[in-house]
Amino acid sequence: MALIVHKYGGTSMGSTERIQNVAKRVAKWAKAGHQMVVVPSAMSGETNRLLGLAKELAGNAHSDAHLRELDALAATGEQASSALLAIALQAEGIPAVSYAGWQVPIRTNSAFTKARIESIDDQRVRADLSAGKVVIITGFQGVDPEGHVTTLGRGGSDTSAVAVAAAMKAAECLIYTDVDGVYTTDPRVVPEARRLHTVSFEEMLEMASLGSKVLQIRSVEFAGKYKVPLRVLSSFTPWDIDINEEAKSGTLITFEEDEQMEQAIVSGIAFTRDEAKISVIGVPDKPGIAHKILGTVADANIEVDMIIQNISKGGLTDFSFTVNRNDHARAMDLLKTKVLPELGAPEVLGDAKICKVSIVGIGMRSHVGVASKMFACLSAEGINIQMISTSEIKTSVVIDEKYLELAVRALHKAFDLEQNQA
Amino acid sequence: MALIVHKYGGTSMGSTERIQNVAKRVAKWAKAGHQMVVVPSAMSGETNRLLGLAKELAGNAHSDAHLRELDALAATGEQASSALLAIALQAEGIPAVSYAGWQVPIRTNSAFTKARIESIDDQRVRADLSAGKVVIITGFQGVDPEGHVTTLGRGGSDTSAVAVAAAMKAAECLIYTDVDGVYTTDPRVVPEARRLHTVSFEEMLEMASLGSKVLQIRSVEFAGKYKVPLRVLSSFTPWDIDINEEAKSGTLITFEEDEQMEQAIVSGIAFTRDEAKISVIGVPDKPGIAHKILGTVADANIEVDMIIQNISKGGLTDFSFTVNRNDHARAMDLLKTKVLPELGAPEVLGDAKICKVSIVGIGMRSHVGVASKMFACLSAEGINIQMISTSEIKTSVVIDEKYLELAVRALHKAFDLEQNQA
Repeated sequence: MALIVHKYGGTSMGSTERIQNVAKRVAKWAKAGHQMVVVPSAMSGETNRLLGLAKELAGNAHSDAHLRELDALAATGEQASSALLAIALQAEGIPAVSYAGWQVPIRTNSAFTKARIESIDDQRVRADLSAGKVVIITGFQGVDPEGHVTTLGRGGSDTSAVAVAAAMKAAECLIYTDVDGVYTTDPRVVPEARRLHTVSFEEMLEMASLGSKVLQIRSVEFAGKYKVPLRVLSSFTPWDIDINEEAKSGTLITFEEDEQMEQAIVSGIAFTRDEAKISVIGVPDKPGIAHKILGTVADANIEVDMIIQNISKGGLTDFSFTVNRNDHARAMDLLKTKVLPELGAPEVLGDAKICKVSIVGIGMRSHVGVASKMFACLSAEGINIQMISTSEIKTSVVIDEKYLELAVRALHKAFDLEQNQA
Repeated sequence: MALIVHKYGGTSMGSTERIQNVAKRVAKWAKAGHQMVVVPSAMSGETNRLLGLAKELAGNAHSDAHLRELDALAATGEQASSALLAIALQAEGIPAVSYAGWQVPIRTNSAFTKARIESIDDQRVRADLSAGKVVIITGFQGVDPEGHVTTLGRGGSDTSAVAVAAAMKAAECLIYTDVDGVYTTDPRVVPEARRLHTVSFEEMLEMASLGSKVLQIRSVEFAGKYKVPLRVLSSFTPWDIDINEEAKSGTLITFEEDEQMEQAIVSGIAFTRDEAKISVIGVPDKPGIAHKILGTVADANIEVDMIIQNISKGGLTDFSFTVNRNDHARAMDLLKTKVLPELGAPEVLGDAKICKVSIVGIGMRSHVGVASKMFACLSAEGINIQMISTSEIKTSVVIDEKYLELAVRALHKAFDLEQNQA
């Protein structure tokens, strides 16, 4: 008998029929003798519906008082789905109780709409588990020191589940979703993409941050920090498949170094489409310049991804970075009106038609020549590389977005991802 | 400057456009210098939608654990509408904050789906009011001693509003609804029905309990107990009508005896359609019989309304009572299978095609002949009276349901309700 945390995404909770399936699956695990904690998302579409109503009333307001109310509003989605799941479990004859974030409590800071979990009090939950109940905890939300409801940001239910698993030292946290695991790349782009049976925590972190939207990145960080065994698997298998088979399905995110001995050099190809590039040309190569450019952008709440500064010629250098495509126009405008006049830099260039492609693999640490193999492959396809950025287990390039599919397919093949066993 | 409580029903909160209207109306009151507490219902249809989902999952389950989850589920409706109203007020430039029942807190007992308010802590609300904020408090809900969310039953938002007004000693509690006040009878039955400018608390209590669905009966009881000045008025007047005019519109529910000196003898005609009659014929006229019959019915959670027992003949009597039509079949079944065999009573008769019509008026206390005038009026219309029940300020009769409209119209005319000024 082990303590197991299940997390179900919005699609898995998308209708009463699906909620019934979730209940039957959880009941199976409970009947097998496990202590079960379940973290559901809101029914799919519900959070968007609620925030849509708010937007009709207030547009894009940003005051803290406004964000506080957005959180109070959005948190109701998970509260409802959790109660519905408890009702469905009870109908299956399984004692169950649902708790909102404040009832556990899951304590967070006061950063409304993107709060961070600070502590979880598991006393109440443990008492219920000991009494033989399945405990359902609303995902995505918590309560701040002043008793205000907070939410953790989009995908926050993953983080809730991992945090609960960490706080309670669960044997495993199973993230049920609408895909059956983590793939070497997006199967919609490369039909030969293969599901990974295991992936290292570091690789998963890179994949998640690169747009492989299987898991919210903060949940992976959390899992890494607290060494929570994390498994991504499908909620669309029949609920009554053999529990031992189910327990081994999907993709396990591992933390033990020795488990990765047989790891392939490159585990997967990640990519993001919605990037945009900005270059400030002819910047004086002096201390404080990078801060002046990026500080202005950061103050406007625009997140910057890749940052490149090349060596200077004649005391001038070019400074490039990428942002989310939605922020591109705003960032360009900021630079032109606020930064350029101050810097005396002659020009800022933007390109919203780019994408980023990355090879990710923990084996890259100990293997040379991986990056150059990547560049050779792209070159052979006639794809020009606009920017390069590397980390220990990742090499990313920015290319014209029209080459995205071609690049991903070529790299997937070049690194033998169809055939290798992870 | 006074402390004012506004309560808005589900229809008044039924769309973002209507929520905007509520916000503008509340803003007008706040700008006039009042301290404002607002209690909104869920958007119309929302509570039914949520409970419909629950019903799909569990049918008519009745366990306490099930009812607890129903409350957690249903409470989200008001939580969402309250946050939306706060957002709409902020968009009007009015500082506003919304609180769920547990955040105030509004403390209740643990009777899930029909909890009773035990206390309200107004410290947090007062601090916000002093800081110049409009405070929005979710209607319909509270929190029990164990930190579970509870709801107060259908229409419970009225009770929430009155309870908050009582706890905070508000100058007045304004119940905004989709009718513009309390009428002498239902205007759909009698087009000449007249709005009452004032109605006594006792009369309102009788009208509310008799199906005049303007206010939840418990809210009227609460208002009476704590002498909360209560006004029922329309939320469909233009939001920008003159505030002094608005403050005098609708119907005021009064508690001062001297205000009623000019009261008409009969203030209104109330009626309920959904009644059913049950008679146990030939019951031994012995102590404990009434308890044996009604105790069994009460144990099955069936509410009994009128109870009639006539004098006995030959040691046997007939015992009649009315129940809600929905409970009729179940009550008949219980009597036949459980009560009759024990009593040795020969027969139970049921009639689901009846209705109840009542004349209500505080003036009846000091005027004789009011009941007989009622009976004469019905007799003149050829309507047979099946049961009669009287109280200090009310006389009720049970008649065949096909005569309902005829009876109400005739009584409305007989007691000059079209012309008198209340």
